[in-house]
Amino acid sequence: MRTFDTGRTDFEQDGPITVARWEQYRIAENTMPFGAMWYSVPPATSSALDCHPELELSIVVAGIAHVEAGGAITEVRAGNAFLLDSEEPHVIHNRAPDQQLTIFSGYWMPLTAELAGSPSGAGTA
Amino acid sequence: MRTFDTGRTDFEQDGPITVARWEQYRIAENTMPFGAMWYSVPPATSSALDCHPELELSIVVAGIAHVEAGGAITEVRAGNAFLLDSEEPHVIHNRAPDQQLTIFSGYWMPLTAELAGSPSGAGTA
Repeated sequence: MRTFDTGRTDFEQDGPITVARWEQYRIAENTMPFGAMWYSVPPATSSALDCHPELELSIVVAGIAHVEAGGAITEVRAGNAFLLDSEEPHVIHNRAPDQQLTIFSGYWMPLTAELAGSPSGAGTA
Repeated sequence: MRTFDTGRTDFEQDGPITVARWEQYRIAENTMPFGAMWYSVPPATSSALDCHPELELSIVVAGIAHVEAGGAITEVRAGNAFLLDSEEPHVIHNRAPDQQLTIFSGYWMPLTAELAGSPSGAGTA
């Protein structure tokens, strides 16, 4: 069992936000079927507009996200999640004046039919 | 963009804990390369011993987990994560007298070499 503690993780500035990619944990290659990162949006700050081919599942672990996507802004509080589709443009706003917003994100390329039929898509833990 | 709100999710009793599997969200099949669930461990309660072939990445979203695995008990606070290996026995303790422990888990079967070489294992979002 391995643990991943944001307090003992290196975050790097990436425009207005800080990002900690999980590559730094040196998890053995091919252990996880997705890439992962933590990122923090400072109070009263927004991420840059982002758009990428990977789908992205985000778990809000601290603060309140206002997620701008598809022409709407949706509030997602700590403990809840949001899933962005491939090539879906998004901006993450932290509207709080004094509270960090921290998010875990897992991301992966759209699954091909070949992959979709594999056992990794049908776990039943 | 879709959101997943634990407050609007059906949790089912599963022994001493409650579990909300993501199948209920009816995400299109083959969207995610892993299965997912939320689960809650009530105050002063422990999960049953669990062990399964899937690897499992857990994000603690509320409370403090004491994760028993490999002969040790490790504290994992809200906002942090732990990764259990395939077939690694584990028990999740909530030692708090009055605070729920809620966890997001993603799980997947060990990746085969064939899958490991695929784009879904190398996202760079």
